[in-house]
Amino acid sequence: MFLPRKVLEERLRNLLTEDIGQGDITTALIVPEDHITEAEVIAKRTGVAAGIEEAKILLEGIGLEVNVLVMDGERVKPKQVLLKISGDTRTILVVERTLLNLVSRMSGIATATRNIVEKLQKTKLKVKVACTRKTAPGLLYFDKKAVFVGGGDTHRLHLDDLILIKDNHIAVASSIEESIKLVRQGASFTKKIEIEVTKEEDALVAAKAGADIVMLDNFSPKKIEKTVAALKKTRSYGKVLLEASGGITLANVLKFASTGVDVVSLGELTHSAKTLNVSLEIMKIKK
Amino acid sequence: MFLPRKVLEERLRNLLTEDIGQGDITTALIVPEDHITEAEVIAKRTGVAAGIEEAKILLEGIGLEVNVLVMDGERVKPKQVLLKISGDTRTILVVERTLLNLVSRMSGIATATRNIVEKLQKTKLKVKVACTRKTAPGLLYFDKKAVFVGGGDTHRLHLDDLILIKDNHIAVASSIEESIKLVRQGASFTKKIEIEVTKEEDALVAAKAGADIVMLDNFSPKKIEKTVAALKKTRSYGKVLLEASGGITLANVLKFASTGVDVVSLGELTHSAKTLNVSLEIMKIKK
Amino acid sequence: MFLPRKVLEERLRNLLTEDIGQGDITTALIVPEDHITEAEVIAKRTGVAAGIEEAKILLEGIGLEVNVLVMDGERVKPKQVLLKISGDTRTILVVERTLLNLVSRMSGIATATRNIVEKLQKTKLKVKVACTRKTAPGLLYFDKKAVFVGGGDTHRLHLDDLILIKDNHIAVASSIEESIKLVRQGASFTKKIEIEVTKEEDALVAAKAGADIVMLDNFSPKKIEKTVAALKKTRSYGKVLLEASGGITLANVLKFASTGVDVVSLGELTHSAKTLNVSLEIMKIKK
Amino acid sequence: MFLPRKVLEERLRNLLTEDIGQGDITTALIVPEDHITEAEVIAKRTGVAAGIEEAKILLEGIGLEVNVLVMDGERVKPKQVLLKISGDTRTILVVERTLLNLVSRMSGIATATRNIVEKLQKTKLKVKVACTRKTAPGLLYFDKKAVFVGGGDTHRLHLDDLILIKDNHIAVASSIEESIKLVRQGASFTKKIEIEVTKEEDALVAAKAGADIVMLDNFSPKKIEKTVAALKKTRSYGKVLLEASGGITLANVLKFASTGVDVVSLGELTHSAKTLNVSLEIMKIKK
Amino acid sequence: MFLPRKVLEERLRNLLTEDIGQGDITTALIVPEDHITEAEVIAKRTGVAAGIEEAKILLEGIGLEVNVLVMDGERVKPKQVLLKISGDTRTILVVERTLLNLVSRMSGIATATRNIVEKLQKTKLKVKVACTRKTAPGLLYFDKKAVFVGGGDTHRLHLDDLILIKDNHIAVASSIEESIKLVRQGASFTKKIEIEVTKEEDALVAAKAGADIVMLDNFSPKKIEKTVAALKKTRSYGKVLLEASGGITLANVLKFASTGVDVVSLGELTHSAKTLNVSLEIMKIKK
Amino acid sequence: MFLPRKVLEERLRNLLTEDIGQGDITTALIVPEDHITEAEVIAKRTGVAAGIEEAKILLEGIGLEVNVLVMDGERVKPKQVLLKISGDTRTILVVERTLLNLVSRMSGIATATRNIVEKLQKTKLKVKVACTRKTAPGLLYFDKKAVFVGGGDTHRLHLDDLILIKDNHIAVASSIEESIKLVRQGASFTKKIEIEVTKEEDALVAAKAGADIVMLDNFSPKKIEKTVAALKKTRSYGKVLLEASGGITLANVLKFASTGVDVVSLGELTHSAKTLNVSLEIMKIKK
Repeated sequence: MFLPRKVLEERLRNLLTEDIGQGDITTALIVPEDHITEAEVIAKRTGVAAGIEEAKILLEGIGLEVNVLVMDGERVKPKQVLLKISGDTRTILVVERTLLNLVSRMSGIATATRNIVEKLQKTKLKVKVACTRKTAPGLLYFDKKAVFVGGGDTHRLHLDDLILIKDNHIAVASSIEESIKLVRQGASFTKKIEIEVTKEEDALVAAKAGADIVMLDNFSPKKIEKTVAALKKTRSYGKVLLEASGGITLANVLKFASTGVDVVSLGELTHSAKTLNVSLEIMKIKK
Repeated sequence: MFLPRKVLEERLRNLLTEDIGQGDITTALIVPEDHITEAEVIAKRTGVAAGIEEAKILLEGIGLEVNVLVMDGERVKPKQVLLKISGDTRTILVVERTLLNLVSRMSGIATATRNIVEKLQKTKLKVKVACTRKTAPGLLYFDKKAVFVGGGDTHRLHLDDLILIKDNHIAVASSIEESIKLVRQGASFTKKIEIEVTKEEDALVAAKAGADIVMLDNFSPKKIEKTVAALKKTRSYGKVLLEASGGITLANVLKFASTGVDVVSLGELTHSAKTLNVSLEIMKIKK
Repeated sequence: MFLPRKVLEERLRNLLTEDIGQGDITTALIVPEDHITEAEVIAKRTGVAAGIEEAKILLEGIGLEVNVLVMDGERVKPKQVLLKISGDTRTILVVERTLLNLVSRMSGIATATRNIVEKLQKTKLKVKVACTRKTAPGLLYFDKKAVFVGGGDTHRLHLDDLILIKDNHIAVASSIEESIKLVRQGASFTKKIEIEVTKEEDALVAAKAGADIVMLDNFSPKKIEKTVAALKKTRSYGKVLLEASGGITLANVLKFASTGVDVVSLGELTHSAKTLNVSLEIMKIKK
Repeated sequence: MFLPRKVLEERLRNLLTEDIGQGDITTALIVPEDHITEAEVIAKRTGVAAGIEEAKILLEGIGLEVNVLVMDGERVKPKQVLLKISGDTRTILVVERTLLNLVSRMSGIATATRNIVEKLQKTKLKVKVACTRKTAPGLLYFDKKAVFVGGGDTHRLHLDDLILIKDNHIAVASSIEESIKLVRQGASFTKKIEIEVTKEEDALVAAKAGADIVMLDNFSPKKIEKTVAALKKTRSYGKVLLEASGGITLANVLKFASTGVDVVSLGELTHSAKTLNVSLEIMKIKK
Repeated sequence: MFLPRKVLEERLRNLLTEDIGQGDITTALIVPEDHITEAEVIAKRTGVAAGIEEAKILLEGIGLEVNVLVMDGERVKPKQVLLKISGDTRTILVVERTLLNLVSRMSGIATATRNIVEKLQKTKLKVKVACTRKTAPGLLYFDKKAVFVGGGDTHRLHLDDLILIKDNHIAVASSIEESIKLVRQGASFTKKIEIEVTKEEDALVAAKAGADIVMLDNFSPKKIEKTVAALKKTRSYGKVLLEASGGITLANVLKFASTGVDVVSLGELTHSAKTLNVSLEIMKIKK
Repeated sequence: MFLPRKVLEERLRNLLTEDIGQGDITTALIVPEDHITEAEVIAKRTGVAAGIEEAKILLEGIGLEVNVLVMDGERVKPKQVLLKISGDTRTILVVERTLLNLVSRMSGIATATRNIVEKLQKTKLKVKVACTRKTAPGLLYFDKKAVFVGGGDTHRLHLDDLILIKDNHIAVASSIEESIKLVRQGASFTKKIEIEVTKEEDALVAAKAGADIVMLDNFSPKKIEKTVAALKKTRSYGKVLLEASGGITLANVLKFASTGVDVVSLGELTHSAKTLNVSLEIMKIKK
């Protein structure tokens, strides 16, 4: 997920533009032109920093100087300074809220992701923690990037990323075999094929039909275990990747992860993560 | 917050565009051209519906027919159908995720807002529940609209909406009096002036200097009560609006609301609301 | 009305882009690549400079060096140099017309505004001079900014700025009381409420119903005086702001301003101001 | 100047978008959803209608029905209805100001143009009345179109339209001959070549060097007559087109037009035209 | 590669907008407003039609009626009518060139692709024919779509589509093993990994290190055969996909295709395909 | 065709954006942040360099340093280095394909153009070689610029460039005379008028009716010679410019050029030019 900074800068500036309207009238009246300030972005809670690269590009892109004190992915503590900013005071005050909204959302997502990743690491299970496309609308890039920073797997970046056959596709194609046949005929050789199934026997059918990945949708841990056993019998286990999805949380993730699946995926990483509280404080007025 | 539908349609289509990349390859391979379907958007949990108007405009704007069964602001129950959609199956499947991400986020925010609003209504307290600018980046319009649908006050829609003097402005201007003097001289007569204070005595100073609204930032309920008492003494109470902000949650909102303030504001309505789970299901294949 | 310069730069570059088509063919054929020049922007008439900040950002944003000799809001005389520009000659010639169109329009508006503001200042009347939304289409920001530079009040910056109830709203709501009741119930506490009235008795009704500002639309000075007298009787005068609008010009502004209103507003400041003639002259060819 | 309506619709909607911010809050609170209205756009003064096609496309493009009663280019009288509009009341009220700003500006320009064109027509002089690129910034298309509707010549539509060698180009190229030589070598055979001169003898040089059009910049009528006489002597008159520019107004245009030039051009048609006052009135509330 | 038509319509309209400038002046002067016509798009040469869906959406999106006579992917003969268009004559004439440029380019690419695909089909070889990212700049979507219509494999749709390790990546990572190790650790489980190699032994290393696809870059058919033999020995053949790339043309494709590779890829399909000549002719003037 | 570099930079960056999706995942995983490299863009074949200015602006616009070794329009040989690039390795690898696609296409067009121009130069014929609007869709600017660099005439840059009456216009207007009459009445005096004819006698009619340029569409060299002879008889030859178009190639161009026409125009210069093969190679890893 590397974007040249000018391209990312433009996406970030669009976030800022939405908030500004015809300009900041409070700041225009109180802060003199060419007034210079130093400010800090400070964490208020414990968590994992994310959005730091984005913050730097956003700020430098509107002419401010930035000193990065914490890298994306580092653990931070309350009162820890993430960034030092210096430059035109008016510009700092205008960008403040957009900046904090971005960093706090991305850090919140990275923190939630890391908590689960670390829980699994302690168990030595080699299971990947993935997010879904259940992001805030329009924030696919930033939400996925935050998951990556937190140590998670970004799954599909958008619709042309992967062949992912879902329930509604199967309904149209009339069967799992037919769906997989159609995509195997027509899809580029550069793509993997994933299919979502809701029953144990469908997992077997999908594996046999040539899916690269089978998503076990809303399976209980017990049901997954039975499915794994059945796949072992048919010697498909190990050849097809298994993704468990639906109803997985920090609390129950270990049960899912120890069933024999390769990946657990969680929508709540991106759709309902609590933000990490951060604030911006002016430290020194230079002029 | 009324936008002509063509203007809103364009904002919504931009959300869709981000997700699509070069197009949906799975759907292109499985679903025939000109295939027609009926689908439903269904709530999975109890909550308040929001984003229904936006969903309708998004869907109709890409050529689908929509039948709205629940109005924005209505309470919904699990399994309740919010929208019936019919039209080109490929188009339905492409828009599915963006649609659900929008409705589930907006409904989640409206639900959180309504819960607090109703808690206050039961007490007969005439205190407004407001959100802040702590939204998901780029989603100011949708997050604010969801708060409105939930019965909350949208507060500032963007930076040129209101004169709002915050801690960093006061730091630059050197004093509360000076800040207010500067904005009273220069601001349009069409604007209200709000100022954020952190101490009881500053509230008095602000009221005296001519603020229309005083935001009591991170005051405990007790500290607010003392401030209200002091304002009553100086006969400012009732002339200046009082907004309590910082640390307010569903759990403690009654304590804040019964102190004599006019408004309580909560960042978490928009920055950390849990989404309301909704799904799209194909019901009938027409062709 | 402070915009970070990168945001303003983009708006300005869009103005330039409209004019360019596939590029300047005359300049490409006559002026060698990497040819360097010094040029000056010079006033041809007496007036008030505006658009200087915008000119600087536009020019620097396309790689030219700019030396500002006159500040926004300063009075200028014929032959006075406003800006010195140096850099790539081709770029200077391409931007010339867009630059001059911007500065001459904004300076024309600022000049018209200042003339009225100064006329009132001589009388010691504390009446504000405001513009309206009758700007050139698409130039709201630049027209409003020019009024501000001229010393005027910008009034609404756009539609979500202020609750302004106009004749057509009242027609729909059926009465002044009903209109004001509806907006008082639903509007954010951060907004003022203004209403436009056409009869003396309506001004009283509006003030009583809780309007913050009453616009006396197309009232003669005599009719305004009668209204002021009536408002004094009901003790509303001084509590509600009064704005006179319609038919006000430089010639008759004093009659309106001495009636007791707080604000006079004039559409012609922005919709029909004469531009201030400015030109660009190449002074020295460096290479 | 024909644009497919979808392309024009998009330009027009961008004008609307600038004004709206996060939406019309007054209208949202007062006018019920799905409220239907009939309204009229009415001239308040005598003039020439322009912007009618644009108005129709803007309005239909946001879902309103439009009945056009006056064609672009027709003379209108006070109280004359230009357009009848029906549809969603909220949408009508949101678009009102942008619509009126557009029609009143374009009609003002068309009126000023027509006044001059008709003055010349009475004299039977076959002299064209042209505008310049001195338009409102960003409004090149609309200002030029209004001149065309008024009966004027649009001159250059943008920078790649015509080879136009101006004073600053000559300064760089060091001479008139050299400038014309350079562009004759390099320019496409599809282009005419125009050059701006400030002295009688330069007009002769330019004609001899092969210019298609010579612009006599800031020549008095007497000076033009002398130039015409000299061109007749050298037999260039009639082969090269002559354009008089600078200082021409409605009052003195006949003196310039009767000198023997082919074209008179006036910046003030577009940079300082008074708008034609028009208003929108709701006539009938349908629901 | 399915895009909702409104999204595709916007991309197509942007192609049109680039060509139009301030509008079609010839058509505006010659063709009356509201003039209605029927026209046909006609093939001038033998080939495979592509861009038909795009043509339909472009034309309908600007208000014309379209009757499609040939489907994307069908073979066409000289004088065969591809589309019948009816509607506003001005609009037809404005869009003519953009429409023809699109259809002729896409059909040219589809024709070139089909020629190769059919050559292989006759031999019963199950080798895919793929394109590369060597498209016209900015036309990735349209060029890839044309290859798909011609029966080819689209390969990567853009940079986040596939992990493709090229020579320059290997140079940075210092070895093939290290490159593959890095991407296997960090890449999403949803992605395949392809690597480009230039030597026989590198193909073995890549297969062993876990690449899903190995691109044999600029290998002669003989060198490919030796590599295939070596892979068979190490039992990697059949587990890793082999793509031959570089120097492949219609003339020599059979030699490459019969070496044992799974895919042949050709840059010239998209970077240097001859367009298929098509023209638009007005058939009937309706009004 | 001079565009200020910031304007051109934006057009170029849009080409890049289309290719990137959510970012380069391969590069992100293999190349460390802040890794610095030197690379070269190298010609693989003989030809004429074009797109060098565009390459420089694209690269510098995303923060890379560029050293230009070959000017636009210079002949290049295999292995010749066109550009040296240094800077952030990730950025270089992301831009590689877009850069090469642009330079190879533009150089291919310039090469094809130069080959024809030089062929004519050897004969001392003063006939211009022009392109048409048959470009890749959306690449009008770049394709025309490449023709200019190759020494050709760019013909129309877009639709408002020239009055060009084509077959379909004449069909609507009913005759050549009527078409020309209509445009002479209504067109700006700044425009030339060109008309396309298919018969010898029509060329005479067009010349008599006042066309500035007559395009002889699909005339054989013999038919052109007869037309030239006829025009000489009516003394129109030399007053009207003659453009031969249709069926002209490198092979037969001399026959067309020696008929007495002023211009030969060729669609294939832009619609079917072979690209010039260029590649990017990393030369030195700096860090």
